[in-house]
Amino acid sequence: MSAQLARRLAGVRAQTLALVEGLSAEDCQLQSMPDASPIKWHLAHTSWFFETFVLQPHVAGHAPFDPAFRTLFNSYYVGVGARAPRVERGLMSRPSLERVLAYRAAVDAALQQALASDALAPAALALVRLGIEHEQQHQELILTDLQHHLSRNPLWPAYRAGETPVSDEAAALAFLPFEGGVVPIGHTGEGFAFDNEMPRHRVFLEPYALASRLVTNAEYAAFIADGGYRRPELWLSDGWDCVQREGWTAPLYWLDEGLQFTLRGAQPRRPQAPVCHVSYYEAEAYARWADARLPTEFEWEHAAETQGTDDGSFVEARHFHPAPAIAAGAASLQQCHGELWQWTASAYLPFPGYRPAAGAVGEYNGKFMINQMVLRGSSCATPREHARNSYRNFFPPAARWQFSGIRLARS
Amino acid sequence: MSAQLARRLAGVRAQTLALVEGLSAEDCQLQSMPDASPIKWHLAHTSWFFETFVLQPHVAGHAPFDPAFRTLFNSYYVGVGARAPRVERGLMSRPSLERVLAYRAAVDAALQQALASDALAPAALALVRLGIEHEQQHQELILTDLQHHLSRNPLWPAYRAGETPVSDEAAALAFLPFEGGVVPIGHTGEGFAFDNEMPRHRVFLEPYALASRLVTNAEYAAFIADGGYRRPELWLSDGWDCVQREGWTAPLYWLDEGLQFTLRGAQPRRPQAPVCHVSYYEAEAYARWADARLPTEFEWEHAAETQGTDDGSFVEARHFHPAPAIAAGAASLQQCHGELWQWTASAYLPFPGYRPAAGAVGEYNGKFMINQMVLRGSSCATPREHARNSYRNFFPPAARWQFSGIRLARS
Amino acid sequence: MSAQLARRLAGVRAQTLALVEGLSAEDCQLQSMPDASPIKWHLAHTSWFFETFVLQPHVAGHAPFDPAFRTLFNSYYVGVGARAPRVERGLMSRPSLERVLAYRAAVDAALQQALASDALAPAALALVRLGIEHEQQHQELILTDLQHHLSRNPLWPAYRAGETPVSDEAAALAFLPFEGGVVPIGHTGEGFAFDNEMPRHRVFLEPYALASRLVTNAEYAAFIADGGYRRPELWLSDGWDCVQREGWTAPLYWLDEGLQFTLRGAQPRRPQAPVCHVSYYEAEAYARWADARLPTEFEWEHAAETQGTDDGSFVEARHFHPAPAIAAGAASLQQCHGELWQWTASAYLPFPGYRPAAGAVGEYNGKFMINQMVLRGSSCATPREHARNSYRNFFPPAARWQFSGIRLARS
Amino acid sequence: MSAQLARRLAGVRAQTLALVEGLSAEDCQLQSMPDASPIKWHLAHTSWFFETFVLQPHVAGHAPFDPAFRTLFNSYYVGVGARAPRVERGLMSRPSLERVLAYRAAVDAALQQALASDALAPAALALVRLGIEHEQQHQELILTDLQHHLSRNPLWPAYRAGETPVSDEAAALAFLPFEGGVVPIGHTGEGFAFDNEMPRHRVFLEPYALASRLVTNAEYAAFIADGGYRRPELWLSDGWDCVQREGWTAPLYWLDEGLQFTLRGAQPRRPQAPVCHVSYYEAEAYARWADARLPTEFEWEHAAETQGTDDGSFVEARHFHPAPAIAAGAASLQQCHGELWQWTASAYLPFPGYRPAAGAVGEYNGKFMINQMVLRGSSCATPREHARNSYRNFFPPAARWQFSGIRLARS
Repeated sequence: MSAQLARRLAGVRAQTLALVEGLSAEDCQLQSMPDASPIKWHLAHTSWFFETFVLQPHVAGHAPFDPAFRTLFNSYYVGVGARAPRVERGLMSRPSLERVLAYRAAVDAALQQALASDALAPAALALVRLGIEHEQQHQELILTDLQHHLSRNPLWPAYRAGETPVSDEAAALAFLPFEGGVVPIGHTGEGFAFDNEMPRHRVFLEPYALASRLVTNAEYAAFIADGGYRRPELWLSDGWDCVQREGWTAPLYWLDEGLQFTLRGAQPRRPQAPVCHVSYYEAEAYARWADARLPTEFEWEHAAETQGTDDGSFVEARHFHPAPAIAAGAASLQQCHGELWQWTASAYLPFPGYRPAAGAVGEYNGKFMINQMVLRGSSCATPREHARNSYRNFFPPAARWQFSGIRLARS
Repeated sequence: MSAQLARRLAGVRAQTLALVEGLSAEDCQLQSMPDASPIKWHLAHTSWFFETFVLQPHVAGHAPFDPAFRTLFNSYYVGVGARAPRVERGLMSRPSLERVLAYRAAVDAALQQALASDALAPAALALVRLGIEHEQQHQELILTDLQHHLSRNPLWPAYRAGETPVSDEAAALAFLPFEGGVVPIGHTGEGFAFDNEMPRHRVFLEPYALASRLVTNAEYAAFIADGGYRRPELWLSDGWDCVQREGWTAPLYWLDEGLQFTLRGAQPRRPQAPVCHVSYYEAEAYARWADARLPTEFEWEHAAETQGTDDGSFVEARHFHPAPAIAAGAASLQQCHGELWQWTASAYLPFPGYRPAAGAVGEYNGKFMINQMVLRGSSCATPREHARNSYRNFFPPAARWQFSGIRLARS
Repeated sequence: MSAQLARRLAGVRAQTLALVEGLSAEDCQLQSMPDASPIKWHLAHTSWFFETFVLQPHVAGHAPFDPAFRTLFNSYYVGVGARAPRVERGLMSRPSLERVLAYRAAVDAALQQALASDALAPAALALVRLGIEHEQQHQELILTDLQHHLSRNPLWPAYRAGETPVSDEAAALAFLPFEGGVVPIGHTGEGFAFDNEMPRHRVFLEPYALASRLVTNAEYAAFIADGGYRRPELWLSDGWDCVQREGWTAPLYWLDEGLQFTLRGAQPRRPQAPVCHVSYYEAEAYARWADARLPTEFEWEHAAETQGTDDGSFVEARHFHPAPAIAAGAASLQQCHGELWQWTASAYLPFPGYRPAAGAVGEYNGKFMINQMVLRGSSCATPREHARNSYRNFFPPAARWQFSGIRLARS
Repeated sequence: MSAQLARRLAGVRAQTLALVEGLSAEDCQLQSMPDASPIKWHLAHTSWFFETFVLQPHVAGHAPFDPAFRTLFNSYYVGVGARAPRVERGLMSRPSLERVLAYRAAVDAALQQALASDALAPAALALVRLGIEHEQQHQELILTDLQHHLSRNPLWPAYRAGETPVSDEAAALAFLPFEGGVVPIGHTGEGFAFDNEMPRHRVFLEPYALASRLVTNAEYAAFIADGGYRRPELWLSDGWDCVQREGWTAPLYWLDEGLQFTLRGAQPRRPQAPVCHVSYYEAEAYARWADARLPTEFEWEHAAETQGTDDGSFVEARHFHPAPAIAAGAASLQQCHGELWQWTASAYLPFPGYRPAAGAVGEYNGKFMINQMVLRGSSCATPREHARNSYRNFFPPAARWQFSGIRLARS
């Protein structure tokens, strides 16, 4: 099993490097807002995770690559000690990108050696497994943070050249019915899951219907044209305050003249592509306008488990942007995965009986269970094998820089 | 039925005046923070509610007391039109308190005349009923806002003289077991309820246990002594940020030397009295420290419905401060009502199938369903007849100026 | 001399009460911004000044009216001890206005008794004298602060009824020449002066010319019509930032439809009346637009000393608003006093050899000598006997709530 | 003359490159605060100045290196058009450092070609001259901004290795007397000067005395030990607010254990070296504590003109930190240049008769003449030929990241 894990580790770590290929040291230094970390920091922090939680406690005689890194690249683990302020991550020109890459290589080598020697106890192997999932989460953040960093440059530079190849055929919107009842929710226990997906438990659902696909740019443009951003009665009170304070008149990254900023630079907005980079407030207001609502995370999981199709782009497609639904699939539950995370009407709260993991890794999820809404599914920036129906993503209701979209529901 | 409603209306309106008796025009002018409105504003706004939603639309020939009041005393009803900025409510020295009291009297007279003439349609009568409940909500806010206003005065003035007469006997803490299962939640339909308590629906509950009484000052002091406000591992991440940003080291209104600021001025803290004026963050951290958790609003309602005792002080006791539990009642579910609102682990979200009321009064609840946590029960500032088990109160997790306390739960 | 001082003291103290006549306790409670204190606070603080600096140190056996007042009504004298936060002065509903008036009466009685008994040493008499001047400064602030407080009320209430009776004849604008040279600046030593007007010293002035009257509303309206608030090249860099941040498009208190808010409520703007409630930034930008500049404080004082006419309204005229210049006086230096304070191009800095007074009263002026610009002259809110050519008023360059106007100069 | 100018231009431009030698692209990307620009931006902006003001208007057929740079690297010239927000200069990873260096080379080549061809009119040659001075100003800012950028890195990296070689001998402090009178102030007209140093004019000075050298670290440490940062009576009111708001307890860059952060990393503080990186507030408070005052800019210039010695380090010494005074020179006016800029008691205001230059370059100085204090002299980061006695540097009173120090005066 160690050998298999070693191969998987090597593959995932290599994928991170493949994602940043072509970025300059200057690109990797950018921090456009406190929420979005520099790419260099992501590269270092994911290595820090392995060094701090696997190599230092579990590999005898491990010498730290650089003792200062323990503090420099700690994200939020108070159990590990001091941290550099999040807002100043972009101010670390040293260590250089080159040295951070050397750090990655050294950590990889030490991990592979430890795995090859079969010296790691099961607890350590579980932490390697967790580190791989952690790395994949940061792969997605590397793309979403990078898009935000680049978007602040008046030149609108592209991360990757070319345009996402997508069809423009229109898929009709259907509402698919579900009976509800007492249904099981949460991870089954097979394969990896984060602690916040557990324990598996029962939830009672009233009958409901779920939209067959995500809301499109064309549909969202109709909401805007109908005064969507100017009518307070469509919004939650906090949402309306946010619209006015931030001056929102469209989703993040929408530009003038039918363009939007993407990881491929400024591109034409495709009418049939799903609307993306919307906040919970916008998703919720849109749903009200459309005489619908957002699904709860339980409705979403139950529907996806029972009728979801397996059709997403994921990061492997290298679209870096969500693709339209398929016209032929209008009667099925499309786009559950691999295009956009989908805001749900559920606040991010512990499942009944939830217990965080012991030790510093227990800070992974539980302490964020307030002031955030759950998103379900996965996106065009998610590695395919990282996605599952029980996955609970979460962001504050005003967040827009993730690949987030809208799926409607009705009672 | 109109006659009965007229009597009830007169009684509730008179109770508001009884609450503000003895306050000077200057006292009624204070606004210590944007969230806390001046007492004069409460007196005017509750009258505005009746004039705007009952008299103007439903009483032919009603002449507004003062056309400017439509804007001046609108709280947040965008459907009604412009509003004075909330943060500047304390800057309206005119109209004077005297004129606002005349406004109240004029509205009361018009309402009583309309009720006496049996001219009001059922929809209008329902709005009178809603206005009475609205008035009672503001009765509670008059007390909690006033406490905050007065607390900013270096002299710590008392609203009412004397000390709350309470025993200091200690009631043991027991965890009472509940079986759970699919249980009904929400208002049954008998008597008044706000739209957010409906529709009645089913929820699945795992087995759980609920504390027999609220957490006491003595217990909370042990949490503080154990480093409660200095240990980040006990807190939600946002809660810890709040502790540091605000410099919290104790509940709101705790003073030095064993004192706390109350509506009766600076008073000794009673060890057996329930800890009050805590935020959700503090309640949640205390629960973690105590190896417990907060109940969900569904657990709370189910337990109160099946085993709750009827023992609170309510505003009628004129304590203006929560009283201790009774030693003899340790095995029963005490203090569900009339002492302190109780933070639950549930975010304030719509019940399945929730529909806000039509028209401007539909802004009453629904648009606040984000970034807030539910509190259940009622407090020493709540009118007794205003309380019920399905009542859903809600505040942001950092709010502390309400009469809010902690009841623990365990799975 | 004590008897004369006693009469003067009584007269000035009575004038303060005359100014607040007709204001309600609620009016006197208002605090519309941190810079503008409640009228009740002014009434108390001016009494505090006499009690703290005269009665307590110099009158044997003086019992404080209320020991808590020492802290409550201290403005900024760190030498005296603790203070209530400036921003929360409006939150003191207690002590009541009634009690503050009793405080005034008690302080007045004790002062008169001390003066009648001839028991006060010369140092104490000098402090009584200083307290009278301090009281007169607060008389002006009572009016300017009150105007700001009332301006935040959507009803635009009037402090005094009626319209300021002014002619609308136009006085031509002339630039009067001055030769300059080494000139004396500062107080001569006859009569009272604040420490910041001393010592008298020499300054070298190049030849200059000073406008015969203040800039009018009509002239300022031409500046606005010419894009004054939209052309960054007319402004200091900080001024332009301020215009954009605050959204300024006209002087403070200008309303739509040719109206402006005054102490007599919303009134028509008179074209020939001097433009008032402008900041230094606006004055300086206007001067640039008019191909002129603002005078230095030295030019202003020298010109007023040698050619100034004695023609102002002052507070005694009860205009509460500046009056136009006289057409017949176009060739003379009009409006030096009694209409508007006049921004100068001089930063508020110590004169050569400046020494603040000893003790806490030494905090009166010196510690504010940074980030402020000097205004010279006096205003329609200034008591006539309080004005003199060497008087140095000072405010930050963005302040607009004072009676401040513009006099042009040229080299 | 063109040939001489061409040589000087080449030398100054090469010196800029010499200063940034060894810095990585990541180092050159940093922006630690809005006031401090990235090094890459300085490199680009100084080239932009030549291209915008010389090449584009005065060299026929000049093709812009990149049209986008006109906006990207405009600092504050509203006359030139749009600008990228100052606060986001650090977010431009593109253009890369490499491309900015190519931009510099292209601008240099075009300038040299134009100068060689003798095609530039006198007005254009004057702008080349201005651009050279502008470049030298940015050379100083490159060092001071870089020090701030690097200071935010928890690793305290060094810009240059090694320690500044300085003696530790103590030079006694003497106050040298000056008679004053009507003295000439401002630039004589020989050689280059900025518009703010003109016109030369007369000022009357009372007799005064100036300290023979700058205040040392040892002297400033005595101020701190005497409660300097805890005694409000020593400070201007705004200064004290700043101390409390910012939590100042020592000059910027003072570290624990006798260290301070410098361009050579963390180094021991030398007792006899001049105290540096102090704000005007600190300089002014120190002077009050020392029973002295700061000199006016006129006193400083007159003294330096008549008795100043020529003894500074300047940037050419490559100390990158100020050196102590010489014991042997105690009776002479030392350290006027080449160690630290010296706060004066003068606000930054126009000289009598000041006129800004025509066109966009007229925005160079005049629009900043508010809310700033004048510093005189020059520093260890100033090129020697850039310094002169009439030079007027200026910063807000809270600024500390420049090489700023304290020279005392007395009346």
